Amino acid sequence: MLIDRLIERILQLESPIVAGLDPRLAQIPAAFKAPYYEQYGKTPKAAAEIFCGWGREIIDSIFDIVPAVKPQIAMYEQFGADGIDAYIKTVAYAKSKGLVVIGDIKRGDIASTADAYADGHIGKADVEGSLHEIFGEDFITLSPYMGCDSIEPYLKYCKGGERGIFALVKTSNPGGAQIQDIMSSAGLPIYQHVGQLVSGWGQELIGRHGFSLVGAVVGATHPSEATLLREKMPHTFFLVPGYGAQGAGANDLKGVFNKDGVGAIVNSSRGITGAYALEKYKTDYSEKDFAKASRAAALDMRKDLQAVI
Amino acid sequence: MLIDRLIERILQLESPIVAGLDPRLAQIPAAFKAPYYEQYGKTPKAAAEIFCGWGREIIDSIFDIVPAVKPQIAMYEQFGADGIDAYIKTVAYAKSKGLVVIGDIKRGDIASTADAYADGHIGKADVEGSLHEIFGEDFITLSPYMGCDSIEPYLKYCKGGERGIFALVKTSNPGGAQIQDIMSSAGLPIYQHVGQLVSGWGQELIGRHGFSLVGAVVGATHPSEATLLREKMPHTFFLVPGYGAQGAGANDLKGVFNKDGVGAIVNSSRGITGAYALEKYKTDYSEKDFAKASRAAALDMRKDLQAVI
Repeated sequence: MLIDRLIERILQLESPIVAGLDPRLAQIPAAFKAPYYEQYGKTPKAAAEIFCGWGREIIDSIFDIVPAVKPQIAMYEQFGADGIDAYIKTVAYAKSKGLVVIGDIKRGDIASTADAYADGHIGKADVEGSLHEIFGEDFITLSPYMGCDSIEPYLKYCKGGERGIFALVKTSNPGGAQIQDIMSSAGLPIYQHVGQLVSGWGQELIGRHGFSLVGAVVGATHPSEATLLREKMPHTFFLVPGYGAQGAGANDLKGVFNKDGVGAIVNSSRGITGAYALEKYKTDYSEKDFAKASRAAALDMRKDLQAVI
Repeated sequence: MLIDRLIERILQLESPIVAGLDPRLAQIPAAFKAPYYEQYGKTPKAAAEIFCGWGREIIDSIFDIVPAVKPQIAMYEQFGADGIDAYIKTVAYAKSKGLVVIGDIKRGDIASTADAYADGHIGKADVEGSLHEIFGEDFITLSPYMGCDSIEPYLKYCKGGERGIFALVKTSNPGGAQIQDIMSSAGLPIYQHVGQLVSGWGQELIGRHGFSLVGAVVGATHPSEATLLREKMPHTFFLVPGYGAQGAGANDLKGVFNKDGVGAIVNSSRGITGAYALEKYKTDYSEKDFAKASRAAALDMRKDLQAVI
């Protein structure tokens, strides 16, 4: 079962880390980009090819020390069809290296529309009975604002055991509080109501390590809320953004893990892939060695997290 | 200003209708699809080309009687890069015929990610200072669950006056109630809190007809809630799904319009584009005439709505 494989790989590598692949042209070294611009001009196609090449370099440098990557589709989608092609190739390349891929797509729509997203991303797209795997992510992130019928089409694929989802519960950004922290008449903030729903959606999809294929996104930037959710959602695996560039440190992460030190995977995007430009790494790594700097940053993050689990 | 142009076109055509373009292979006549399968096989490429051709036929048959179309990106995205290419071409074709295009994308993510979606969909994607319009929708739909900082990147483009958004407030599907109808400790259901936020986001983007470029998605399937929101959000234009296939009729729509009969545009997807297969039209229109049946259905819908505004 996918969630068990993910947990076992985390334990084997002692690395509850997912490397976020959020490529931004401004954060990729100029010398790496130059040959692509020479070939394709300053075009969306060039951007897409750069993202493909950059993703391969990053993946090659970290696939043996982190269990998962999380490509952010927005970065690719902004360049249209070429960008989507690069996203799909990046997913496939990561899987070919044994990584679990969490597609950060945050889709959410009514059931008949969710069917199409589910088929395309974690299932098969049907062309008159000819079935095609299109995106092929292992997990995808989803927005829960439209409720259960917007989630059910994905559960169909989760039931096969090899696909999963992470629904937004308590997000890492400050503005999330505007809706997620509204107190209900029952005395619970909205994110806890959403947490209950997410637990319920996943209750029949729990693997042998006690966690479900239906996970939750819980930001590291809210340590006390995360601790509470960890207690209330013992079978829900957490995808945890907010470490590093968004401000949370290892101490903020204690609560996302259970007493056995499992139950969550912590994302770092710019903190890993943009390490070469950080004060801490730039004396040891030149721009050319950006992928090596990413490996060093992932190893440092592992050490940082090991201190709290 | 975009919202004024939309309202004026609605008034000119006496047609507060947006035709939803949600192509599904199973709902497109076999004879129309056959030549594409002959050329491309039963492939994602064939599906994408079919969607392009189908969209052009539908658009050609209705562009002079409805002011807007709403392509649903999920239907295209499920076929990967080819599908996205077809979506982009459909947006461009609709705009070339003078239609306002509402891209139904329901994205929602933290600010740094929302920047990428905003650039790609309603702005310009930047390749080292070379700016490219990628998707080019006029309006896009957005999910509000992550709050204000997830919306702000889009407002930057709305401020130019020619781009707008519709944020989900009260969705048409039954499951939406699970979160949207939770009662707050202040005595308001969550969707009303979200409505207040959406009003606020749009308050500096109001055109000469009194409506903002920041609109709200309010389902026709909840007539009393919609009526209340219309009163509380006098400057917010509504995008109204749920008419037709989802169950709402014209009488359910009275409340979404203000006393002058403006303030909303009502979506119909399958009710228009799938009309040829409906009992009402199938004696007069053969499968070959599916686009003509769509025109007849749009005209009937116009008549139906005119009775209540």
